[in-house]
Amino acid sequence: MAAPDFAPWRARAEAALEHALPDPATAPQRLHAAMRHGVLNGGKRMRPLLVYATGTALGACEADLDAAAAAVELVHCYSLIHDDLPAMDDDDLRRGQPTVHVAFDEATAILAGDALQTLAFELLTTAPQPAERRVAMLAELARASGVAGMCGGQALDIDATGKGGQSGFSQVKSHSDPLFRLADLERLHALKTGALLRCAVRLGALAGNATPAQAALLDRYADALGLAFQIRDDLLDIEGDAATLGKTAGKDAAQAKATFPALLGADASRARLGELSAVMQQALAELDADTGALHALARQVVERSH
Amino acid sequence: MAAPDFAPWRARAEAALEHALPDPATAPQRLHAAMRHGVLNGGKRMRPLLVYATGTALGACEADLDAAAAAVELVHCYSLIHDDLPAMDDDDLRRGQPTVHVAFDEATAILAGDALQTLAFELLTTAPQPAERRVAMLAELARASGVAGMCGGQALDIDATGKGGQSGFSQVKSHSDPLFRLADLERLHALKTGALLRCAVRLGALAGNATPAQAALLDRYADALGLAFQIRDDLLDIEGDAATLGKTAGKDAAQAKATFPALLGADASRARLGELSAVMQQALAELDADTGALHALARQVVERSH
Repeated sequence: MAAPDFAPWRARAEAALEHALPDPATAPQRLHAAMRHGVLNGGKRMRPLLVYATGTALGACEADLDAAAAAVELVHCYSLIHDDLPAMDDDDLRRGQPTVHVAFDEATAILAGDALQTLAFELLTTAPQPAERRVAMLAELARASGVAGMCGGQALDIDATGKGGQSGFSQVKSHSDPLFRLADLERLHALKTGALLRCAVRLGALAGNATPAQAALLDRYADALGLAFQIRDDLLDIEGDAATLGKTAGKDAAQAKATFPALLGADASRARLGELSAVMQQALAELDADTGALHALARQVVERSH
Repeated sequence: MAAPDFAPWRARAEAALEHALPDPATAPQRLHAAMRHGVLNGGKRMRPLLVYATGTALGACEADLDAAAAAVELVHCYSLIHDDLPAMDDDDLRRGQPTVHVAFDEATAILAGDALQTLAFELLTTAPQPAERRVAMLAELARASGVAGMCGGQALDIDATGKGGQSGFSQVKSHSDPLFRLADLERLHALKTGALLRCAVRLGALAGNATPAQAALLDRYADALGLAFQIRDDLLDIEGDAATLGKTAGKDAAQAKATFPALLGADASRARLGELSAVMQQALAELDADTGALHALARQVVERSH
C-alpha cells in the first residue's frame, strides 16, 4: 500500500497557523516575531495530521478541522518554547534552529509561550462547530494541556530528573524495581506527550461527531500512539545524531534521564514498539471508518528516523 | 454612604479558586503546591469583585458568576508568577511572601504559571451560562490575555524598560515629546493591566446579559478604572514603603521605568486620577442598574493605599 501524501494537510496546517499568528509588522513586533519563530519552524505537524486524519475518517470536511488542528499545534509549540528555557531543559537548538530564548531572549520566550497558549484557546473559540461542541473541544484542549495532562507530565519529568529540587515523584529515579519504574515512566509520558496527541485525535473525533464506541476505539489508538511516539523518541536519542535529529543527541543519557531504552534495553524497547503497533492496527480494524491515514500515521510514528 | 462590604464576595472568590485548584496531596505535588502558593496569597481579588459587581448590577445571581470570577483571577495570578521571574521583573517578594520561583524554583514557577492559565480556560468551560454565551466569555478572556491584551502590554513594557534587547517600542523610553510618551504609556497600560480589568467587567456583563448600550457604558467605566488603577499603582510606588505595599517600593524609579508620576509629576497624576473618577461616576450614572458596588470599587481603586 502506497503511503498517503500528508503534504496537503501539512500545508493546510501551516496556512491555518500563519493566519492565526499576529502580524510581525505590528507592535509588539519582537513578541510577534518570537511567536512566529517558535511556530513556523518546519515542525512535523503530527498533532494537526492526527486531527485531519481522525476528523476526515469520520466524514468531517477539512475546512471544519483547521481551527482544531492549528490550536493543538499552538499548545505543542508553546510547550516546546518553555521546555527549552534555561530553567527547564536548557536547549539551544530545536529543529536545527536556535531556540526562541537564544534567538530572542528569555523574557520574550516566556511571553511568547504564554501568548501562544492563549492564542490556541482564542482560535478554538472561532471553530465552525456548534457552540456546545466548541465548548467540549475547548474543555478537551484545556484538560490535555493542564495539570492532568501536558503540564502535569512536565512537572513529573522535572521531579524525575531532579531539576526541581526536592521531588514529589522520585520513584522514576530512585525506585529499585524496574517494573515499578517502567509503570511510572509510562504514566509520565502518557501525560507529558500522550495527552496532547490523544487530544488531537479527540478534537478530530468531536469535530467528526464520533459515536461513543468510535471514540473509545480512537482513544485506544491514540494512547498506543502516544506511548509509541515516546519510545521511538528515546530510541532516536541513542541511535541518532544531531544532524538528522535537529537537536542535541545523547542528551538523555548525559542527563541520566529515565528512558525506555535505559530501563528496558534497546531490543525490548523495539519489541514494545511492535506490540503498540499491533494495538493500533487492531483498534483501527474495529473502527467503522476510512482509517487509511490513521494507519499511515501509526506507521510513521513507529518507523520515523527524526 | 457606607462602603459596601466586599468580604462576602472575596470569600466566594477564595472558595471558587480553592475548589478549582488541584489537590496538593496528589502528584505532581510540587507543581500543585506552587500553583496554590501563587493564587491563595491574600490578593485583593479586584477582578473577581468586578465580575460580581457588574454581574449582580445587571441581575445575575452570584452562583452564576463564580466560574468567571475565578477564571479571570487565575489569569491574573499566572501573569504575576511569570512577571516575577528573574528574566522578567526579578521580584523576590509579592504581598509580603516569597514569589513562586523563590519559594519553589524557576522551572516550577514557569510551569505553575502555564498550568494556571490553562486552568482558567478549563474552569470557564464549566460556567453555568448557555454554550453560546460561554464561548463568548472564553473568547473575551483569551483576547484580554493574549497579544492584543495582557501579554502584548507586558511585551511593550519589556521593550520600554530595555530588558528585551533591541526594542520594537522604544518611544516610551526615548521619545522626547512628553505628550507622545504619555499616549504610549497609556496604551501600554491599557493592554498590560487594563485589558484584564475590562475583561472582568465584560465577563460580568456577558453573564448578566447586558444590552449593547449597557455594555458600552460598562466599557467606559472599565477603561477609566484600568487607567486609574495603574496611576494609583505608580503613585503608591513613590509614596509607599515595602511594609504596607507587600513588595519592594521605589523599584520603578530604580529601574528608570516610564511611569505617570515620572512623566506628569505627582500632582498632575493625582489630578488625572480625579478626572478618571468623574468619568467612572458619569458612566455609572447613565447605566440603568444598581451600581452601588461598582461605585465603591471605583473609589477603592482611586483611594487605595496598598
